[in-house]
Amino acid sequence: SVNADLASERQTASFSVEKLTALLDGGAEQTQIRRAVVEAIESDPVFSRENQYFQTQNERYEAAVRKAVHLQKKMHEMGWTENGPEYKYIYRALSGDVAFLLHRVFMRSISVLGSDKQIAKWIPLATQHKLIGSYAQTELGHGTYLQGLETTAVFDPATQEFILNTPKISAMKWWPGDMGRSATHTVVFAQLYVHGKCYGIHPFIVQIRSLQDHSLCPGITAGDIGPKMNFEHIDNGYLLLKNVRIPRENMLSKFCEVRPDGTYVRQGSQKINYFTMTTVRISLISDEVLTPLMKACTIAIRYSVVRRQSKLKPGEQEAKILDYQTQQEKLLPQLAAAYAFHFINNYLQELFNRGYREIQRKNFDMLPELHALSSGFKAMITQHCTAGVEICLRACGGHGYSLLSGLPSLYTKILASCIYEGENTILLLQTARFLIKCFMAASAGQPVPPSVTYLAAVKHGKCPAKNKLDFLSPDIYTEAYQHVTVRLTSSTAAKLQDLIQSGVKKHDAWNQCTVQLVQAAKAHCHYIAVKNFAETVEKLETKAGIQKIMKHLCDLFALHGIFSNTGAFLHDGYISAAQMDMVTASYLDLLAVIRKDAVPLVDAFDFTDKSLNSALGSYDGQVYQRLYEWAQKSPTNQMSPAYERYLKPLLHSTLSKL
Amino acid sequence: SVNADLASERQTASFSVEKLTALLDGGAEQTQIRRAVVEAIESDPVFSRENQYFQTQNERYEAAVRKAVHLQKKMHEMGWTENGPEYKYIYRALSGDVAFLLHRVFMRSISVLGSDKQIAKWIPLATQHKLIGSYAQTELGHGTYLQGLETTAVFDPATQEFILNTPKISAMKWWPGDMGRSATHTVVFAQLYVHGKCYGIHPFIVQIRSLQDHSLCPGITAGDIGPKMNFEHIDNGYLLLKNVRIPRENMLSKFCEVRPDGTYVRQGSQKINYFTMTTVRISLISDEVLTPLMKACTIAIRYSVVRRQSKLKPGEQEAKILDYQTQQEKLLPQLAAAYAFHFINNYLQELFNRGYREIQRKNFDMLPELHALSSGFKAMITQHCTAGVEICLRACGGHGYSLLSGLPSLYTKILASCIYEGENTILLLQTARFLIKCFMAASAGQPVPPSVTYLAAVKHGKCPAKNKLDFLSPDIYTEAYQHVTVRLTSSTAAKLQDLIQSGVKKHDAWNQCTVQLVQAAKAHCHYIAVKNFAETVEKLETKAGIQKIMKHLCDLFALHGIFSNTGAFLHDGYISAAQMDMVTASYLDLLAVIRKDAVPLVDAFDFTDKSLNSALGSYDGQVYQRLYEWAQKSPTNQMSPAYERYLKPLLHSTLSKL
Repeated sequence: SVNADLASERQTASFSVEKLTALLDGGAEQTQIRRAVVEAIESDPVFSRENQYFQTQNERYEAAVRKAVHLQKKMHEMGWTENGPEYKYIYRALSGDVAFLLHRVFMRSISVLGSDKQIAKWIPLATQHKLIGSYAQTELGHGTYLQGLETTAVFDPATQEFILNTPKISAMKWWPGDMGRSATHTVVFAQLYVHGKCYGIHPFIVQIRSLQDHSLCPGITAGDIGPKMNFEHIDNGYLLLKNVRIPRENMLSKFCEVRPDGTYVRQGSQKINYFTMTTVRISLISDEVLTPLMKACTIAIRYSVVRRQSKLKPGEQEAKILDYQTQQEKLLPQLAAAYAFHFINNYLQELFNRGYREIQRKNFDMLPELHALSSGFKAMITQHCTAGVEICLRACGGHGYSLLSGLPSLYTKILASCIYEGENTILLLQTARFLIKCFMAASAGQPVPPSVTYLAAVKHGKCPAKNKLDFLSPDIYTEAYQHVTVRLTSSTAAKLQDLIQSGVKKHDAWNQCTVQLVQAAKAHCHYIAVKNFAETVEKLETKAGIQKIMKHLCDLFALHGIFSNTGAFLHDGYISAAQMDMVTASYLDLLAVIRKDAVPLVDAFDFTDKSLNSALGSYDGQVYQRLYEWAQKSPTNQMSPAYERYLKPLLHSTLSKL
Repeated sequence: SVNADLASERQTASFSVEKLTALLDGGAEQTQIRRAVVEAIESDPVFSRENQYFQTQNERYEAAVRKAVHLQKKMHEMGWTENGPEYKYIYRALSGDVAFLLHRVFMRSISVLGSDKQIAKWIPLATQHKLIGSYAQTELGHGTYLQGLETTAVFDPATQEFILNTPKISAMKWWPGDMGRSATHTVVFAQLYVHGKCYGIHPFIVQIRSLQDHSLCPGITAGDIGPKMNFEHIDNGYLLLKNVRIPRENMLSKFCEVRPDGTYVRQGSQKINYFTMTTVRISLISDEVLTPLMKACTIAIRYSVVRRQSKLKPGEQEAKILDYQTQQEKLLPQLAAAYAFHFINNYLQELFNRGYREIQRKNFDMLPELHALSSGFKAMITQHCTAGVEICLRACGGHGYSLLSGLPSLYTKILASCIYEGENTILLLQTARFLIKCFMAASAGQPVPPSVTYLAAVKHGKCPAKNKLDFLSPDIYTEAYQHVTVRLTSSTAAKLQDLIQSGVKKHDAWNQCTVQLVQAAKAHCHYIAVKNFAETVEKLETKAGIQKIMKHLCDLFALHGIFSNTGAFLHDGYISAAQMDMVTASYLDLLAVIRKDAVPLVDAFDFTDKSLNSALGSYDGQVYQRLYEWAQKSPTNQMSPAYERYLKPLLHSTLSKL
């Protein structure tokens, strides 16, 4: 039975939840396929996550391996293939709790970087799991700056082998997933040396464990890097190489080859490789970043209508905490952001598909723009969503802090997304570099890519809004965001110029502007996200209440961004103080409007109870019952040796009746 | 041997680290006492935290109990007493990793709420550990709003007993520390009923476990609430009461008593009780909030001068990451905040000591102000410090995400401080209520407490700064903060008035202003923190470079606050756009200045390697060596059954040579 307070929230939905779910999925047919996958996975006890919050790192790893192996069988049984329509739903249905994800990266890097011969040899072995692959790039002392990697691969023409070494402790490979305990092979990135000359970073296939008994191969030291904030199920590993010899054929050689005599040949374009990196950043947004935020919103919002605390009106019963303005102000902007980022993710996917088609036609013109957008949005979305999940956690008070709420795990996992696949600050500076370059070009009348043409059209006017309702007009707020981005970009470009003209060296000048450059890059992404949300709403069908509620969320997303960063808009007076008060008023009004549909809006994400794995967020809202039942199963409710060892002796002399 | 990059940072300190440490401790003598305690604790293997990051929740609990029991012995051995000068350093030296903290709360509540007879009976038993106490207030469905608690205590005149019940699942006690597995007794807060009449919440001593064999007493269901984001060492518990009978004498009766015939008598003043709550909020700041931030700064800043990544200048070696402006902008404001909050903590402690003396003289005039300050600063400092620790964690990239860095545990622990002892939003609204009340009083010419007299002196001028150096003047920035607080308070008071005058009911009007009220309360605390820092610097002795570096930190704390919240200062033009650019310039300049002393500034916190328990933050900076050695000891580097069970069968058919 559904908690009455939660049930009442669903009776007044202003729109069709099922239609919104279909919109999010990209059509009712997709919803159907997704639900079938979820049903198949969740009804299989091998994939259960029931005891997850009670398990040790070792148990989590073992469960993830078990699931990965079982998944092969399941896919065969269900007739699912890697190219089938079901595939993309499997990972979400498993909540990512599965091993061998790096095996896929191993395969992809061979497909992209290997010669036809190498692909023909290795891909079938990997596909049939006759080996387990990993991907060894990051080192203990080196992450972001690939040129700084210290692992070496020296060509020995006498034996036609490469000799691999991690010459210093900082050169040790560190973090690669699946490598600590599982992998038999890995792709090692190393500085290539031929006849004493360094040719830079290249990829090499290295066997690290015996296929016979899984013992480490000669010259290999490897193991698990130990406990992390999350990802207990993954065996992130370390790898030391000492004079490890591999055949010449193991250097992945689609683009570069070392001939038998040691001649180094570079062939083809590496630009596609560059494109791969940008694609990875976009592809992680949906599963690793948006899903956790959507789950956190679902949990926190459902809990906030079940939890009653303090009296809002004297004489009445305690109020649902979602009825407090401060609680709305915590949660509803996160909900709006989840929708905003869902739509920007669609936009980026489409753009990248188009980019991919162009690249296949050998047209690389879109690459700089795609790189800038993927970097900036990876950083912006991971940052916003991580902050959003933390807000949801804190908004649930003590119960949010229990692992059983599901929120701590969502937070500790999403936090990693700010760090992996490019640290966010560095990514934002890549976007900023592109922005500055385009701004200079645009100022000089040169053509620039579509996403930044607005930089040329600097408007010096003021915001025309006359009352608070004007701020519910997408034209008004989109222009405000655009104005701010142009201002931040142009003023930082000017500061950079000034510094250089005053004699500061270029790299010093750049460093002295980086705090402001990061601001400009964020503003650019925020502007595009707002604009895209507004354009998406414009195109939605008006029936079933969908467009109306999406318009409210779009307004909230835009006004929350202004309300949280008023200085950027007030700085040059584009928005006046009086107008800012209108923004605040409209923003606070919107909270009360969207609050009414908050539960239906999270219901539309369509998470099952099993996928939420939360005592606070279940569809039926039976929060207290679930917390109690679940806690009783905790291993901490078994007899502890602490009593016999420590408590009993301590209390010993108290056996007289008090 | 100390890492050379770290060593070089210490050679150029502009001040005496030892003198600064003494300043932080409150005198060189205190430093000496503290170090002696640390030495005694850390040299005792029973208190080791070495394997902490590898332990399960059960192991952590057992270790904490072992330490708590051993601590009794240790104190006796060392001649430390609860009233001695060493006592306050013990908890810090143990890094809080010890059980029976609630036993102390149990004792304090009896001391404060119990009659002389009750104190005489229970305190000796507790002191000698003839029982283990806990404190059962929070319920599964009730936290903040004490009046909403559902546990009942019905007086039965026939037997002279109270009958205790948790009538619904939401009434179950939930969260009390030491209660899940250890406690034999607890103080239960319950609604008192006599002859069918409810007299509200009262405290009752209830035995929950046998002193004989630790089994649960009749009518008691209790256990551990299971895994949490941190606090694995504490057995937070649940408690169900079913017709549990306790003698009439077990109601703590300093202020209220039920006579044998059922007559309810209220005696004395409960105001002291109210004061206790405010004292707890202040007392947690130092150990639970400031120490974690100081540790996080120490770890992140030491790591940031050892870690080299990318080239700042072409042709040179890779740069220390602390040389990047963006890294400085992440870490140095946290460092400045740690100092700012240390000094405001001193200020609050002093104020509370004065308050306590007044209260002993039966003068309760200071109570409202003390309540407002303790609520506001608890919220403000926990929020800032939690955000600061997270920034430190993220600033260390992947390695910050490893538990071995120590940062994840600092974060997951400090996060709880935003929730316990009063949820932050609710506390800020308490401060805001005080602010609004005082603002109205001041406007009407009535006297107000010292910390808010400034509300009466509304100045309508503009900031007089003419160039960026003017913003290094404490008068300039302190006045700016003051101006903003007055503006936010007065505008919210006006909105509240307008709403009420337009017919909105008082409680609705209040709710509609809460987002802005929270802003006003935060601004008030920020203003006082800045003012106090500036006044503290003023009074420092000028020698040994201490005052100069503290002045820089004070400036950074103040300007960072403006830079991060420009809109508040720009809104009514108090600071103009041109002036804001000066603020930005001065702020960024300061980063480069303070960066030079960053390592000495964290060295002055004087944390030992054992207390940091971090592979990244050790005094010698041997980061990579330590990470590697430590990871090898992880239980995840033992043989896993996953190989025989899952991997071997999967790889089985691959035994042919590849």
